[in-house]
Amino acid sequence: MSSSTSSTKNDEGDATFANASATKNIPTFDGDEKAKATDFANYFSAYSQLYHQKQMLTDHNRMAAYHAAIVGNSQVFKDKVVMDVGTGSGILACWAAQAGAKRVYAVEYTDMAHHARNVVRANGLDHIVTVIQGAVEEVVLPEEDWERFGLTLQEEQNEQQVLPDGTKDQRVVDIIISEWMGYFLLRESMLDSLVRARDTFLKPTSGLMMPSHATMMIAPIVDEEERKHQQNDYAAGMEDWKEFAETTSNLYGVDMSVLESNFDREQKEYYVLSSRWAELPTSCLLAECAVVKELDMHVCTVEDARGVGLSVGEDEGNGAPFDFDVVGRSYADEDDGGGRAGPISGFAGWFTVDFKSRTDDAGKDVAPQIPNPAYLSTGPEMGYTHWGQQVFHLPSAIPLLADQTTRIQGTLEMMRTKDSARLYNVRLRFSSSRRRTSSQDRDGDVLMKGKPEELVYQIP
Amino acid sequence: MSSSTSSTKNDEGDATFANASATKNIPTFDGDEKAKATDFANYFSAYSQLYHQKQMLTDHNRMAAYHAAIVGNSQVFKDKVVMDVGTGSGILACWAAQAGAKRVYAVEYTDMAHHARNVVRANGLDHIVTVIQGAVEEVVLPEEDWERFGLTLQEEQNEQQVLPDGTKDQRVVDIIISEWMGYFLLRESMLDSLVRARDTFLKPTSGLMMPSHATMMIAPIVDEEERKHQQNDYAAGMEDWKEFAETTSNLYGVDMSVLESNFDREQKEYYVLSSRWAELPTSCLLAECAVVKELDMHVCTVEDARGVGLSVGEDEGNGAPFDFDVVGRSYADEDDGGGRAGPISGFAGWFTVDFKSRTDDAGKDVAPQIPNPAYLSTGPEMGYTHWGQQVFHLPSAIPLLADQTTRIQGTLEMMRTKDSARLYNVRLRFSSSRRRTSSQDRDGDVLMKGKPEELVYQIP
Repeated sequence: MSSSTSSTKNDEGDATFANASATKNIPTFDGDEKAKATDFANYFSAYSQLYHQKQMLTDHNRMAAYHAAIVGNSQVFKDKVVMDVGTGSGILACWAAQAGAKRVYAVEYTDMAHHARNVVRANGLDHIVTVIQGAVEEVVLPEEDWERFGLTLQEEQNEQQVLPDGTKDQRVVDIIISEWMGYFLLRESMLDSLVRARDTFLKPTSGLMMPSHATMMIAPIVDEEERKHQQNDYAAGMEDWKEFAETTSNLYGVDMSVLESNFDREQKEYYVLSSRWAELPTSCLLAECAVVKELDMHVCTVEDARGVGLSVGEDEGNGAPFDFDVVGRSYADEDDGGGRAGPISGFAGWFTVDFKSRTDDAGKDVAPQIPNPAYLSTGPEMGYTHWGQQVFHLPSAIPLLADQTTRIQGTLEMMRTKDSARLYNVRLRFSSSRRRTSSQDRDGDVLMKGKPEELVYQIP
Repeated sequence: MSSSTSSTKNDEGDATFANASATKNIPTFDGDEKAKATDFANYFSAYSQLYHQKQMLTDHNRMAAYHAAIVGNSQVFKDKVVMDVGTGSGILACWAAQAGAKRVYAVEYTDMAHHARNVVRANGLDHIVTVIQGAVEEVVLPEEDWERFGLTLQEEQNEQQVLPDGTKDQRVVDIIISEWMGYFLLRESMLDSLVRARDTFLKPTSGLMMPSHATMMIAPIVDEEERKHQQNDYAAGMEDWKEFAETTSNLYGVDMSVLESNFDREQKEYYVLSSRWAELPTSCLLAECAVVKELDMHVCTVEDARGVGLSVGEDEGNGAPFDFDVVGRSYADEDDGGGRAGPISGFAGWFTVDFKSRTDDAGKDVAPQIPNPAYLSTGPEMGYTHWGQQVFHLPSAIPLLADQTTRIQGTLEMMRTKDSARLYNVRLRFSSSRRRTSSQDRDGDVLMKGKPEELVYQIP
């Protein structure tokens, strides 16, 4: 018996030791030691590798957007108190200091904190940047900083407030910067920690979050090569199983065929019902993307981090709606005339973030304006980012017909998995219908309406 | 920021959440809930996948050896009480039942237990085999079995003994079967659980362990292609770093060069000082293998599972000695004349297990003899096994000279890693010397003696 610790298969885990804690919160925060340990093993350890940090630091779309947001808005950073949540190698914290911040708290959970400290010192910024190792939920600002750096609450109170829980009000931070986004935005669930950091440290109405806004979108795509590749891997896996069961029965006298349906489910989940990382060209897109979630980072809540299209406190809901018209090629046109050959292989999901002025009612007239907004997209139009797009391939492609428009109407839900609060499933419910492209009536004139489909994918 | 849970890099983990418990025992046993949870995340979850089980079940050298040991010795199994420690899909337990056992306890920690139950039932063996899900250290034999299956202690006592800790003496098992071996035998540390199961359940002198004996060996090998591949990957990684540091400084104004030595260490550990799985042809072997550890499964202890060549209770020791003579080609011969072109690229480690009669003083005349011994080798002579060999490549190869014999003398220690009690490091200390092949004096006539080398590898 021999198992590699770095399995390429998805580890499903046993319910008893899963890293979703009993409260379904992120284990590092809610004090469940067992879930916390599993969470570290499954999640944080990767970020303690420089190799992994380097991968993120060479994602130039990522780097350029944050650099523009911070260094490009030095008038906003000048003399400010800044916190970087999950500083990693410390680069965003260094930029904040270079942009003129008077004090930067760089919070990091993993041992990468040691490296961040070295980077800060090597760049001569340790009089401004202090690296604090720990969970941001447990951080307390250094006592001596209050006087030394003139930390003040928003209302310019000189008397420090004591909160109902007996701790000192620490909302003295002017700007929180963080690169917290995971695959399809929410994977990794770092957003929970960011929201708690915001509520604990940021000046409520004059404080700025960077990024300030985040948006999730999906679009139908053609991507047959990869879709068929997955289908073939799945089929080959099942062929293999049949041969294995036959051999085991003939050669070793034990019938394993009773496990076939379980193996089939395991393989289908792995090969078909798992999203895939992709760097799609824009030519794959078959329609305008639909926005499935918008987050204002100044007002979003831990509830928002639980997923998309869910009812409050539930793992399901009405879903975020989408409604795509995919126009097939026209016989009349010499070239494609704007229509597409298709077929619809599936959906791609990605996100964008903005670094712009506050738009929420409480903050828009109080917080400083951002003179030079910045923007980061992980969509096909942007080229490579390490996030790429998450592609949800359909078990059966939907063909596009000439002179017809295929409408895909449905909803998306994204919810945490049972086993790990850092991982998510995506449920797509949709049905397709066709009409003549020449028809003006989207709801009438339907030639054919497909039966409703429901697919649940894991984001590995 | 985005991290895949199934990283191909080695997760080193943070000391606080490592899965070596404070007592340095295997976490599932010693009751440290935090370490236990991490252990599950890092180790057990792979075994709950049918995909992984199937990989082991299609390792035909493995299958054939166990099948021969069990079904080929049905006279030994007839009417016996058997325990399978870590039954997985349940196949060994089924074979024991087919070989005539009257009762088989199939113990499995992961949810694979459900599948094992289905297999047992589908093969009509559920009146003999009972699958017990849990850590073998916590298993208590079903109360009703004592009468129903006539469970008796070795001394045929009808009165059940009560042990000093207040529990009932359960040493009623005639044969323990287990496929517990990891890479280079000890990786995974399942041996601890097996030893505890033996001491809890096996009849002390009449009981049989299957396998009965295990042997670890190493040999010097030539394997330049793979060795150079690793070296090149390491060199490329460092080239990449230099470019990255340059770009980050020029484009983003932060100097990362202070981290270069840490990155270098991380890369070296990953690419060079990590053993590699290999299926070596016998032509790679440059000398007879040296045995570095022999285990009699009837008498070995948890201390044995801690490693090789260690002092009692320590993570170091004098090491297990090896002493190889590698004969270079001869000018006089047209072909290689028995000598080898080399160079010495490193060492390969593997293991064998035997299924034979007891050889220990207490058991050899009491326990039943095994009429048809079986044998499993994971060495190059055996062809594919899923264990393969673990290859420890040298940073610099040792060239072989014509008409000269290169002697490699040294020691091997294998010890648990600081971070995980299921993983091991291997420390090789050796020096090489050369003499004329024609010389008869191994200790005299030395042309050149290299300086002592010390290398520590992780087994990933």
